[in-house]
Amino acid sequence: MVKVGIVGVGTVGVSVAQILKENADVISARAGRDIVVKSGVVKNLSKDRGVDITLTDNVDDILNDDEIEIVVELMGGVDEPYEVVTKALKSGKAVVTANKALLAYHRYELQELAKDIAFEYEASVAGGIPIINALRNGLSANHIESIMGIMNGTCNYMLTKMSNEGVAYDVILKEAQDLGYAEADPTFDVGGYDAAHKLLILASIAYGIDAKPEDILIEGIENISQDDIAFAKEFGYAIKLLGIAKKDGNEVELRVHAALVPQDEMIAKIDGVMNGISVVGDKVGETLYYGAGAGGDATASAVVANIVDIVRGGKSTPMLGFDRPMEAGTLTLKDSADIESKYYLRVNVSDKAGVLARITKIFEEHNISVQTMLQRPADGSSANLLISTHNAKESDIQAMIQTLQELDFVQSKPAMIRIV
Amino acid sequence: MVKVGIVGVGTVGVSVAQILKENADVISARAGRDIVVKSGVVKNLSKDRGVDITLTDNVDDILNDDEIEIVVELMGGVDEPYEVVTKALKSGKAVVTANKALLAYHRYELQELAKDIAFEYEASVAGGIPIINALRNGLSANHIESIMGIMNGTCNYMLTKMSNEGVAYDVILKEAQDLGYAEADPTFDVGGYDAAHKLLILASIAYGIDAKPEDILIEGIENISQDDIAFAKEFGYAIKLLGIAKKDGNEVELRVHAALVPQDEMIAKIDGVMNGISVVGDKVGETLYYGAGAGGDATASAVVANIVDIVRGGKSTPMLGFDRPMEAGTLTLKDSADIESKYYLRVNVSDKAGVLARITKIFEEHNISVQTMLQRPADGSSANLLISTHNAKESDIQAMIQTLQELDFVQSKPAMIRIV
Repeated sequence: MVKVGIVGVGTVGVSVAQILKENADVISARAGRDIVVKSGVVKNLSKDRGVDITLTDNVDDILNDDEIEIVVELMGGVDEPYEVVTKALKSGKAVVTANKALLAYHRYELQELAKDIAFEYEASVAGGIPIINALRNGLSANHIESIMGIMNGTCNYMLTKMSNEGVAYDVILKEAQDLGYAEADPTFDVGGYDAAHKLLILASIAYGIDAKPEDILIEGIENISQDDIAFAKEFGYAIKLLGIAKKDGNEVELRVHAALVPQDEMIAKIDGVMNGISVVGDKVGETLYYGAGAGGDATASAVVANIVDIVRGGKSTPMLGFDRPMEAGTLTLKDSADIESKYYLRVNVSDKAGVLARITKIFEEHNISVQTMLQRPADGSSANLLISTHNAKESDIQAMIQTLQELDFVQSKPAMIRIV
Repeated sequence: MVKVGIVGVGTVGVSVAQILKENADVISARAGRDIVVKSGVVKNLSKDRGVDITLTDNVDDILNDDEIEIVVELMGGVDEPYEVVTKALKSGKAVVTANKALLAYHRYELQELAKDIAFEYEASVAGGIPIINALRNGLSANHIESIMGIMNGTCNYMLTKMSNEGVAYDVILKEAQDLGYAEADPTFDVGGYDAAHKLLILASIAYGIDAKPEDILIEGIENISQDDIAFAKEFGYAIKLLGIAKKDGNEVELRVHAALVPQDEMIAKIDGVMNGISVVGDKVGETLYYGAGAGGDATASAVVANIVDIVRGGKSTPMLGFDRPMEAGTLTLKDSADIESKYYLRVNVSDKAGVLARITKIFEEHNISVQTMLQRPADGSSANLLISTHNAKESDIQAMIQTLQELDFVQSKPAMIRIV
């Protein structure tokens, strides 16, 4: 019998305990041994968790318990869990975590600490979808050309609703909060930070790239308007918040932002709270993984799968999937300013003579080539220019937006969405 | 350095050798050791394979070579490869195969033989998609409620073309043959047998169910007509050849057939030669895996991933994913006659008075409840009745089709497609 300790018995922790009990028949058949939760650590002992495990408020009760072979870390945060898992690994206990923030900041130190002991984290990216497993094991024969994914269910829910029902951003955010899909302070989700943490984890497995959230381009969905949705529909796009990792020569670009995706791409067809991640390998081509990216049971499904794998085989795969530097350690992070993309811009201008000529001139001066341009009447005497570009450089676009914004006939900061 | 021997150096074997060479940088970083193909076995030594490995026509050269740690079986067929992999396992060599037929007939014997040594077969189902990995490892916390997948690219290509371009079955079959998607004798693909082999493998991992192809319901796409496609479109369905495994109490139903799938299901959105497999777990909900199901490089991607996993960890997961009987060994195969489904029927009848009344009476007599009925003029003085039913039993539907077929005003055997 294998004994597990859970540090942090919230929604996911309760689900882990319940799954290990309710599905014990298949789990023990698959693992070859019975697995039970011996104890759980909580901050508040008086709160009823509705689950039948021994609780303590002292993490040392688990860390010093020789019977416990596997520590499941579900505390959230960065510093405290880092301390806990470090102690667990040093005392020879395997660790399973669902903590993406911990990994976004400490995955390379943890890979070092976990050289000879299992440290698993399937649930940290895309909840119940076994994407870590797929990328680290299933696609190991490939140079990964790109990863492109819907990694945040809250944003996808909101964008899907805005698109299907024509509802404004603020209205749908309120609804998502009422449904429990978005937090009271929604910044972590709608600002793209949650997706960025997940992207960094995947990029380490694919490329061995070391970067922190503050090193990469992160934008959220706060400025998406119904004008943009209308443009997207008219030109055959869906709007999705994407995490993108892409190899270009010896550089890897990492970015999180809303994007216009052609409607016939599989990733454009993923709606509502679901997650989906497309991975292109040089040999396998595109593969895509779809499922629930959040929720207690879905997340716990991944945590328990990690426990089963540890019980089956101990340590088999290196934590981040590589033992020697990937591609001889030649890959570096591309400067965000150098990222190239097609862009869509929405510029609200005074509706008077000469404006179009001035705008197109400015595009030319910034080396940006226009692909389509559409003028739509807006409020009062203004018009919206909806413009898509050919491939352009991030720094050129940003400089141009700055220039446009300073013109007297441009009414507000131009909105921009990248096209993939 | 790990040395590999390949038995059967055809398209996939050549790709395996090329990938191990071309992608050696990432592969050795991930595996922690260098991996090289030492030799390959072919029937015809005089044929140029375009790949730089030592060839022999004697399989014993590999089986008796102590330097070779991993044997890759890519021969095709059942009996001969079974003999080869048995010898390899008994001599302590790990085995990787892409051979679905071998597994459809011998997976339980192989699981016994491979108790203490790795036997991997990711490429046997859905080519480059790591579905074995997902089901055996990523979803191990779940009771699997169902598996439903597009497991044959040839059929999906043909059905997509028939639907998008209104082309007849025979025309599109010829085209698929010209493109190399279908064999000169296409029965194995279009008859559903290829998908059935794959389904049996997945069902063993999910349920521990032992069955052979001849034990389960297998139908192909040969009778799908443009009338059926038109009906599907009108009522919001796509037509797909599906492999389905579904748990119902202590029974598991296994079946391969064309099916009408609601257009908003993810599986309905998978077009062309691509494969996609949807798995529903009791905890994780639906997850879906999409990618190239065939082709040398995609298949070899999975073979090489298996090799990397073996080099990393030797044997960790039981071959079929379980060590003890699944669900205490209580699961049994459901009799095909007892499978329940909704059905769509196309009945070509003489266009005369009283026919509709007779037909509906016969439905009633067979306990089959009609959901929608549509009458369309057909050639000459006949009409097509397009009927969808509520849930009904396979044996009742088959008996009713028999009855209908014997009526003087029914012009040909009624066509039937199940609805999922």
